[in-house]
Amino acid sequence: MKDDFLYIEISNNIARLIRDKVLHAGDRLPSVRMLCQEHGISMNTAKRVFLELASQSLIESKPQSGYYVSQLPYQRLPIPAISNPSPVSSNSEPDELIRRVYSTRGKKGLTFFSIGVPSKELLPLAKLNKEILHAIRQLPASGTEYEQLQGNEELRRMIAARAISWGGHLRESDLITTAGGMNALSFCMMALGKRGDTIAMESPCYPGSLQLARSLGLKVLELPTHPITGVEIDALKKVVHKINLCLLVPNFNTPLGSCMPEENKKEIVALLAKHHIPLIEDDIYGDLYFGAQRPKCCKTFDQEGNVLLCSSFSKTLAPGYRVGWVAPGKYQEQVLKLKHAHAISSSTITQEAIANFLKNGRYDNHLRKMRLTLQQNYTHYINAITEYFPEDTKISRPQGGLALWVEFNKKVNTAELFEEAMKHKISIAPGRMFTLQDQFKNCMRLSLGLLLSEEVERKLKLLGRLVKSQTIQF
Amino acid sequence: MKDDFLYIEISNNIARLIRDKVLHAGDRLPSVRMLCQEHGISMNTAKRVFLELASQSLIESKPQSGYYVSQLPYQRLPIPAISNPSPVSSNSEPDELIRRVYSTRGKKGLTFFSIGVPSKELLPLAKLNKEILHAIRQLPASGTEYEQLQGNEELRRMIAARAISWGGHLRESDLITTAGGMNALSFCMMALGKRGDTIAMESPCYPGSLQLARSLGLKVLELPTHPITGVEIDALKKVVHKINLCLLVPNFNTPLGSCMPEENKKEIVALLAKHHIPLIEDDIYGDLYFGAQRPKCCKTFDQEGNVLLCSSFSKTLAPGYRVGWVAPGKYQEQVLKLKHAHAISSSTITQEAIANFLKNGRYDNHLRKMRLTLQQNYTHYINAITEYFPEDTKISRPQGGLALWVEFNKKVNTAELFEEAMKHKISIAPGRMFTLQDQFKNCMRLSLGLLLSEEVERKLKLLGRLVKSQTIQF
Repeated sequence: MKDDFLYIEISNNIARLIRDKVLHAGDRLPSVRMLCQEHGISMNTAKRVFLELASQSLIESKPQSGYYVSQLPYQRLPIPAISNPSPVSSNSEPDELIRRVYSTRGKKGLTFFSIGVPSKELLPLAKLNKEILHAIRQLPASGTEYEQLQGNEELRRMIAARAISWGGHLRESDLITTAGGMNALSFCMMALGKRGDTIAMESPCYPGSLQLARSLGLKVLELPTHPITGVEIDALKKVVHKINLCLLVPNFNTPLGSCMPEENKKEIVALLAKHHIPLIEDDIYGDLYFGAQRPKCCKTFDQEGNVLLCSSFSKTLAPGYRVGWVAPGKYQEQVLKLKHAHAISSSTITQEAIANFLKNGRYDNHLRKMRLTLQQNYTHYINAITEYFPEDTKISRPQGGLALWVEFNKKVNTAELFEEAMKHKISIAPGRMFTLQDQFKNCMRLSLGLLLSEEVERKLKLLGRLVKSQTIQF
Repeated sequence: MKDDFLYIEISNNIARLIRDKVLHAGDRLPSVRMLCQEHGISMNTAKRVFLELASQSLIESKPQSGYYVSQLPYQRLPIPAISNPSPVSSNSEPDELIRRVYSTRGKKGLTFFSIGVPSKELLPLAKLNKEILHAIRQLPASGTEYEQLQGNEELRRMIAARAISWGGHLRESDLITTAGGMNALSFCMMALGKRGDTIAMESPCYPGSLQLARSLGLKVLELPTHPITGVEIDALKKVVHKINLCLLVPNFNTPLGSCMPEENKKEIVALLAKHHIPLIEDDIYGDLYFGAQRPKCCKTFDQEGNVLLCSSFSKTLAPGYRVGWVAPGKYQEQVLKLKHAHAISSSTITQEAIANFLKNGRYDNHLRKMRLTLQQNYTHYINAITEYFPEDTKISRPQGGLALWVEFNKKVNTAELFEEAMKHKISIAPGRMFTLQDQFKNCMRLSLGLLLSEEVERKLKLLGRLVKSQTIQF
């Protein structure tokens, strides 16, 4: 615990030096070793100091060289305001727009700023292939047989063991595997919501969750959400009597990348439990933190089994494997029954492959690399946007995850920008996709999951030019 | 067409000779070559004659020897009567019983008469493994990427090409792949039924379909069903004004194994179209015909796109791969939207593996072998039941599929029989599982998908003894 305070204290001091311009952009910071000696701290603590500063985009690492004060003029571009959705469900689905954007999926030669999954260069393909081979050799009947209803036992054991990283406690018997994260959310919503019920979500929000709720006839109540600290608790308090269900993505949600502070998580868990409103928690981005420490989950503070924690390996290992999971708390029976009725079992081979990958201790190592890449991408994007985009552009400050949220002035229409950008082989995700209301038309989401290249740089520059030309037209 | 009539004419003639005792049990039939010469027909037509007779269990093939008049005293055991479910939905789910039977799944040392999937010895494991290897080598990003929403294009193309075998016409664009057959049924029911609606099904019926309907809040109307010719059309006509949706398994359904005659299929398709009631057709067993020719589907006669044809590779290749499909006709848009909202995409690698297996022309060859095995099993089971079970036992006469339905006199309680049998490491499927009403308690389903062995023979004998001891107790 002492170290916990130390690393925060030291990083706060350095942050102040940067903000007060004592340290300038481009200045080299002391090495990890030097920091140890200076402060009499362990290597681990020193590393956490740098990770913390990097997660705030105050410093950047340069390979084989060390840490430098970020070139990033982070104070120039403001963050967007707290969202302000209507307190009345409007349920106007942006179907046509979503279809248009998704239709670009898989097209050759496009730069996919629109897609919320890591590109293949960020994934451990060779190792995963080995695990697939191992799985078909190891499994009875080569994996052609039905997996047991609750899912691969070894996989559930490995997921349960990882709960320690978010301060939770799970046993393998608490878990049910699913065909990807959406399938987990689907079972939860089906188990707990009925046609006409109201479900509260963040705004802006992942389009898939909005579509899922609508497909089940649920009304969606969008909640004011802060780009840094997530959903506004006071707003939730005001409507808590009107809702039947709540879905939140507390850690690095898409598109904002916000992360709820621990005290907010605690408060929301208590609030919803008090009103007997189940909380579906989507933690699909939780492992992709840029800072020194993985954030906790709402589930961490769940005393009553009222939180259904969902996640998957689609954002960190292999979207196409369709392996997700849910820890449904006291709603386990209902969710299990739905899995039985709607799916019978999950995909045998890919579950086994991921279980082996985790068992071989490869996951943490992979995540470490991936987080570093995403964080570097984030810094790079912010620099590029500051340089190439209009001066009144606002951007979110994700401290993890795969998404960056960009807000332009009201003259810009990102649905039109999408069409313009497509002519230059750029695919973006227009803001209107992330709501069922008439808002966010001047916003867009950029995926951080790309492999940086001159091409990506060139495309960001081009995108900036397209935005600027839209503002001039008016 | 001439040959079509010829093979039926010749097989009918031989059938008459057997029924009239001109040919005796154990008599050897002429060889294929001799039949050709005798009747001036082609080898293919001659083969179809024998397949047809074998499918009626009138003759059996002995390896390297030829065809013999069946030992089977087929006329001794009667078939069960047409089922007589209550015309009022009762929706009493046999949850506890189903859980009890499913809990035996995967247990070592059991003889699984209870499970409706082929055992691994009947599956082409080595070839499938090769296709998995091929898939991860061939696929972009080794299959870690999301598959396109509608599903693997090559797989859809191969499925469309096979439509010719049931007299249908499909294009790849008509098809959507799913995570197994249940997932296809799930999307169809979700797309077309809302809470409180009534869905008509056969009785007895696959428990998974009953559970699926109940999980969506649908009321199930069970229809009188003939063990040979399937659902009773007159019964359906009587209730057609009261239902919103219909799910049928016209070809070799489980547990009866009935196969609707073509004229019935035609009539039902017209009847339901006239009343604007969508028909979900589950054809998961259609390829497993014992006779010379694959039966047609209801979809074959569907002029208006009112039939949603569902199937999968779970009963013929690999249950654990979770690869199914649906051709939703005019409801395509709704089903696709549900797949997007609830699943995003299907499992990339296993779809590709099955697509390759089909493309390499391996499927028909495999099916041929599998059908022969199932048919031999059927003959074997009927012989064993006739020999070992009480004389008043009734059995269905499946002409394809994986299930045999056995009805005992009313003294026998198959839920109790299940518990007794489990003590002897035998798992059966009690009849009460296949209905939401208070019926079929003296029935059971036996799976034909086992590899025959002395052990299986011994277990059938033992099962017969357990049944007999139940009848004596009273």
